[in-house]
Parts: sequence; C-alpha cells; structure tokens
Amino acid sequence: MYETDFIAGSAELAMLLEVSATPKPGNVDRTHDFQDVTYEHFLGSSVGMFPVFRKAALKGYHIGDLILKAVQASATWQRAGNCHFGAILLLIPLCAAASRSSMISELGKNVIEVVKNTTTADAVRFYESFQNIDVRVKEQQFLDINNPESVRIIQKQQLTLLDVMEISSSNDTIAKEWTDGFPRTFRGAELFKQFEESGYSLNDSIVCLFLRLLSETPDTLVTKKFGSRVSLKVSAKATHVLKHGNIVDFDKELIARRINPGTTADLVIGSLFLTLLGGLRY
Amino acid sequence: MYETDFIAGSAELAMLLEVSATPKPGNVDRTHDFQDVTYEHFLGSSVGMFPVFRKAALKGYHIGDLILKAVQASATWQRAGNCHFGAILLLIPLCAAASRSSMISELGKNVIEVVKNTTTADAVRFYESFQNIDVRVKEQQFLDINNPESVRIIQKQQLTLLDVMEISSSNDTIAKEWTDGFPRTFRGAELFKQFEESGYSLNDSIVCLFLRLLSETPDTLVTKKFGSRVSLKVSAKATHVLKHGNIVDFDKELIARRINPGTTADLVIGSLFLTLLGGLRY
Repeated sequence: MYETDFIAGSAELAMLLEVSATPKPGNVDRTHDFQDVTYEHFLGSSVGMFPVFRKAALKGYHIGDLILKAVQASATWQRAGNCHFGAILLLIPLCAAASRSSMISELGKNVIEVVKNTTTADAVRFYESFQNIDVRVKEQQFLDINNPESVRIIQKQQLTLLDVMEISSSNDTIAKEWTDGFPRTFRGAELFKQFEESGYSLNDSIVCLFLRLLSETPDTLVTKKFGSRVSLKVSAKATHVLKHGNIVDFDKELIARRINPGTTADLVIGSLFLTLLGGLRY
Repeated sequence: MYETDFIAGSAELAMLLEVSATPKPGNVDRTHDFQDVTYEHFLGSSVGMFPVFRKAALKGYHIGDLILKAVQASATWQRAGNCHFGAILLLIPLCAAASRSSMISELGKNVIEVVKNTTTADAVRFYESFQNIDVRVKEQQFLDINNPESVRIIQKQQLTLLDVMEISSSNDTIAKEWTDGFPRTFRGAELFKQFEESGYSLNDSIVCLFLRLLSETPDTLVTKKFGSRVSLKVSAKATHVLKHGNIVDFDKELIARRINPGTTADLVIGSLFLTLLGGLRY
C-alpha cells in the first residue's frame, strides 16, 4: 500500500508543480499573479493542506469532513480565499483511495468505491464548506448552494455526496469526474507520460497537458463565468495552439480578458498526483 | 505549544517562499535555474522533508537521526542531490525547539537547549548524512568529512554534534548559528518584519532580507568556493545594491560567475520559519 506521507506529499507537490508551470494561459503561474490572488497564495494554500491529505490517507475520516478541513487548512497562512477548491474535490477521494492501493491500476477501482461510500452527512459537510469561500457554482434548479433550504432537502431526501455530484455532473467537469470514475484525471496522467517520453521538460510536459485537457473539454469555470460560446472558443484556441505553438499570445489574450481556465488546472493537479504517486522522479 | 503540523508546515513554506523570491542574486529562484539544479528540484525537496520536520516537532527523535532522515527525504521525488543541507541544519533544531515553545521568545532559549543536548551519536549521524550528498565543507585539520577516520575520532573523544559545530564555527555561518544561539536567524526575522512594515511586498521583503544578511555576513558557501576576498566583495556589493538598487545587474553578474550565496539563502529560510511560526499571514 502507498505510504501515508508519500500520498500526502504527492498531492501537495502536484499542486506546486501545476501552479509553477509556465506559461499556463490565463491562470496564475510562477511568472504572473492576479490582482487579488498571487503565486505565493497558491504556495501557502498547498502547504496548509498537507495535513488534511495525510488524514485522507489514514483510515477513519469521512470525505465530507476532509473537504471542509481542507478548505479551512488552505487558509492557514494565506488570506486570498480558496484557490484550490476543485483540486480538493479530486485529491481528497484520490488520497483516500491511494491508501488502499498498492498500484495506480488498483486506485481507479478504489476511488469509485470511495465516492460510492459517501453519505448524506458528507453532502451536508460539502455544503458547509462553501460557507466561507467564493466558489462559482451554477445554481441548480434545486440545491442552490446559497440557499439554506438545500441542506434540508439533502437531509429529507437522504442524498449522498455522490448524488449531489450526479446532479451537477451535466455542467461541472469535477462533479463528472466523481460520477464517471475520474477518467479525465487518469487520461491526463497517460498524456503527461507521453509528453515526458517525447523529451519535453517537466515544465513543458505540464503546460502541454494543460493545453491538451483544455482542448478536449471546455473549462467549467470559464463556462460558468463567460458562457458556453466563449468556453468552446477557448478550447478550440487551445487545440490551435497545440498545433501551431503561439502560446504566449494565447496567454496574453486570456489574461487581458480575465479568462482563467481553473477547472483544467484542477484536472492537471489530479493527473500529476497520479504521476508522482506512480513513480515520477525528476 | 505550537502544533506539530503547523511547525512542519512553517518550515516547508519558509523553503518555498525563499526559493520563489526573485531576483535573488546568484541563486536559483522562480525565474532562473542552474544547469543541474532547477526551481522544481527545490519544490520537490521541500515537500519531501515535511514528514521529517513533523517528526522533529514530535518528541522522541534524535537530532542526528533527523538530519540524516531529512537528507534522505529531500530525494523522495527529485534527483538533483541535496539543495537544502544548510537549511536542514537550521530547521531541524528550530522545529524541535518550537514544539516546546508557545511563543517565539521562548524558542530562542529552547533551541540553545536542543543543540546543547546533542550527543556523540548525533555527531556520527551528521557525518553519515554527508555520504550521499555533495556538500562543500572546508576540510578541518582533523574531522575531514571525507575521512572515515573522523568518525573514530568523534567516538574516541566523545564529541557531541555541538562540539563538531564549534570546531567549524570560525569559518561556517550555519555552525556559528548553532554555537551562538541562532542570532542571525532571529535578527533576520526582525529585519523581515521591518521590511514588511515599510510596505514592501512579500517577495520584495524576502529579497531585501537576503541582500541585508548577505551584506552583513560574507556567505560561507561563496567563501568556500571562491575565497574570502571574493566573498567580502560580494557582501560589499550587496550593501551597495541595498542603497542604490541595481539588483538585476548584481544578479546577472553573480549568475555569470556562478557565485551562489547559498548559506545566506539558508539563513533567510530560518528567518522566514520564525516569521511564519510567529504569525505571518499574507
């Protein structure tokens, strides 16, 4: 079985390598900050969450509690709010599954079990975790996160956290990862391996992985902020950049328009976690 | 008392913030790599050592064992050798002392106790920790780290790790921190606070701290590689840059001449550890 500290460290290092890779069009990276969120905020958030990933890799903690703890721990040193919410939703079940696995191929089966075993209490905790953070979630017909009534509905209907993700899965890639068995996260790890084996540096492999995942799946955060039309265009542009290589202009354009494909960055983090856990040494 | 995970996280985040601050003349930072050691190597090394800092903050571990474990843990994901040896020598006793302290003012007294309580077994482990790393240590008349005879002398004379540091303290700032009660590390934390209160950003406060410490104390690593004359000139130049601000040229000059003031970076890490532990939130 993967060792607790190794699992937690792989999760944290995945976050650090992702935010450090540059240029990563539209997002904070080691060479550009946003006005309200800087590169150092991401560093602090990543370190703060190590102890929670460690708990996720131990037995006896509930997924909903861990999500709430991770949101709180992200703020141990940095004050820019939660910059890792999507990554938390991927990494918590992956860390829990890793502790029951001795190879990556087992992890795929185990993470499905982990999310299947979530409860109504986990769903309630998930809603509580939104209370102190600014996460853009498209309102559902019911289960609006800003509506206290939602928690009562969850309890009355005995919805599990997986049920809640199911409801969001049609317009949220992270929720869809939960319901589909994390296919994009695992595919990302395969893609990373291909880029690395082609001779790309660590940095460039991560950048290419980001572009490829963005080209294949419109970014949830971009869709929620700017609508489907813009999000599809951004993905089409990522495809073009992968073929023709004008990444610096693409970065400048997205930064100027404040289009940050944050969900794609979350997927990259999940894929890098699998890659580090699976044996990447650099 | 400071909490275990908070101590370990403060140590790790200190390393991440130090290596990220830019421009830091002559050293790896987020905008420049060396040919054999990159920014990502420092990230991996920092994450790998978290579990050892955690152990240092728990009871029941010996300082020498922890130093050896930290050197090994630094290589969990990255293969560039040990890029944090000086920082380890500062952080391990500081983490151990922090676990017995409830405020920074107590930590100063406690870290003196921690290094006083080191034993001959700690000194032997310290020598063992050199075996797999390339650390530039000026040969002593006796106790040459490359000479297996040294361990026998330590055992025969029952030298403690503090005794070994005492022997090196005339030409090694980290060893001198051990014998003098970590005064530069604590002073660095005071200086950082002054820079921050003057309105400098986090990045710029770290850069100014680096320059100030370099201007005050010739860098041990630079002295060992290039001799006292060069090292004194580098410190004088740092004083000049602090007054006149041509830091980019200074950086370029040191990079071109491969002069990397690594010991000053280690001191900055120690000072940032105290700062984060003491309550820095950004």
